[in-house]
Amino acid sequence: MTKEKIHICEVGPRDGLQMAAAIMPTRVKLDWISQMLAAGLPEVEAGSFVPAKLVPQMADTQEIISSLTQVYSSGISALAPNLKGAQLAYAAGAHAVIVPVSVSDGHSLANTRKSTFDQIAELEKIAAWIHEQDRPMRLDVGCATALGCSIEGVIPEKRVVQVAVALAQAGADIIVLSDTVGYGHPAQVRALIRAVRLEVGDKLQKLHLHDTMGLGLANALAGLEEGIRSFDASLAGLGGCPFAPGASGNIVTEDLVFMLHSMGFDTGIDLERLLSARQILSQTLPDERLHGNVFAAGIPKTYKAYSKVQEVVLDQSDRMRLAVHPP
Amino acid sequence: MTKEKIHICEVGPRDGLQMAAAIMPTRVKLDWISQMLAAGLPEVEAGSFVPAKLVPQMADTQEIISSLTQVYSSGISALAPNLKGAQLAYAAGAHAVIVPVSVSDGHSLANTRKSTFDQIAELEKIAAWIHEQDRPMRLDVGCATALGCSIEGVIPEKRVVQVAVALAQAGADIIVLSDTVGYGHPAQVRALIRAVRLEVGDKLQKLHLHDTMGLGLANALAGLEEGIRSFDASLAGLGGCPFAPGASGNIVTEDLVFMLHSMGFDTGIDLERLLSARQILSQTLPDERLHGNVFAAGIPKTYKAYSKVQEVVLDQSDRMRLAVHPP
Repeated sequence: MTKEKIHICEVGPRDGLQMAAAIMPTRVKLDWISQMLAAGLPEVEAGSFVPAKLVPQMADTQEIISSLTQVYSSGISALAPNLKGAQLAYAAGAHAVIVPVSVSDGHSLANTRKSTFDQIAELEKIAAWIHEQDRPMRLDVGCATALGCSIEGVIPEKRVVQVAVALAQAGADIIVLSDTVGYGHPAQVRALIRAVRLEVGDKLQKLHLHDTMGLGLANALAGLEEGIRSFDASLAGLGGCPFAPGASGNIVTEDLVFMLHSMGFDTGIDLERLLSARQILSQTLPDERLHGNVFAAGIPKTYKAYSKVQEVVLDQSDRMRLAVHPP
Repeated sequence: MTKEKIHICEVGPRDGLQMAAAIMPTRVKLDWISQMLAAGLPEVEAGSFVPAKLVPQMADTQEIISSLTQVYSSGISALAPNLKGAQLAYAAGAHAVIVPVSVSDGHSLANTRKSTFDQIAELEKIAAWIHEQDRPMRLDVGCATALGCSIEGVIPEKRVVQVAVALAQAGADIIVLSDTVGYGHPAQVRALIRAVRLEVGDKLQKLHLHDTMGLGLANALAGLEEGIRSFDASLAGLGGCPFAPGASGNIVTEDLVFMLHSMGFDTGIDLERLLSARQILSQTLPDERLHGNVFAAGIPKTYKAYSKVQEVVLDQSDRMRLAVHPP
């Protein structure tokens, strides 16, 4: 009779802020991230160890991660594209490091100046180095552009599977399928999860979805139905896509939480507190377009009742009713 | 090897315009509707036979329907809340009439000044009258507030089933489940379709969804997976919800079409031509917020390739792959 749990990682402080026109001051970032953690978010991707001259919005990542890990004993993650970045993340006390590997060579070269398989060689070094350390640090690897690429277009399923297998062999703890530019559709999400899982099993755990074409939550639903229980999302859908002007960013955390709670899942998040963490964004990033339907419309009166009803009835037959197929 | 067909009914000229602050001139309406029909939309809900003093945006419905039915031999529908409206729709040559019946008594009284079952009695009169006429006119009945009500909150599934059975007995040709205020979620959509279909079978054919909470396309996907092959949608998501300021309107036709085509379904619609029909809206309704991610981001380069790939591979095994379960 307990609710099934879904893990949500808030990526706004990384994927969102790196696209923002303004630079959010360190103190404000820490306040914002703390508010979201206090609302019950179990994980935040709090920064990116990339050169400050390339991504000035991420220049304070070392300070952000160090400050947070002094307070929180779990849930503080950082992106790192290479060994040096992973070492910095470790030194700052990060609980997990996310290494991006673009399935598309074109995107990989544009993003990291390495081909896909050169980046996988870098990943092997990172994994080997992490395993030599005393303290464990989870190694997540994102298959960027797994559902389409703005440079190469369609990415063949076989290519994604091939890359995912190489990531597992290179030592990834968790493999993430990333719809980096938001071109994916639900049938593709389902098919790709099945194909990748056949080869790497439970290492495939997470979806990273963008809402570029408005299919973000439909794609999340497709993932849910294939047994995915871990998602990236960003508050107010902060972000965007450098290759698609006008496009929205990641799937909106609040809307995802609303959908999941309505369906009877447990995220551990207090939706109202989460919504109030948007205030900092509207105050400090006035030029960013903030997305999110639940915020615009308000939480409906049916919300609490749904959660309650589902709490009581979520048994084996309801797993079917919710169309939840375990892996 | 042929693609499975999905029927989309454009409801912007009715559900969208009735909410708009400005009144679109008759000539512009006709131009707009013609553009959408020319883009391949098989059906347009072109107006509503309601008192002009209550809904001035719909005052020209008689002229709109008459003009369109002189040119088009199918696909011109009108909403009518009562016998008088249905008679006017028939006189204007409408090919189908949509009668709304609110499952929630509270909403029914607010909307038609009749209780749910008093409105069903009106429906019986309408059905009897239509069957006496020489020319056939399809009778669609929308179960309004079937997925939640801004007045009554949660609507019990049993109540929806009870009302749907009464609608079938009263003579509805097609029963529509309508998420009038957009509070529904995917697990609920799936469960409700199953429950209603058990009692009324194939009369349940269509979903009418609003995107209030951002779950519109996820709910459409849930419906698709339950075998629904007919959807209402509105261009640019025109509309809104009088009970939820800031909320968006119906699901966005262009985004729905993009999702369906990407998944390998055939709607008969030319997406680029459909997108260009938005121009009239931005020109004549400058105060309305137009929604739609595909328009904002542009059609991605993967779009045509997906359609092509799916066209070739859509056989029995792919029905599963697309998670399409026939009724």
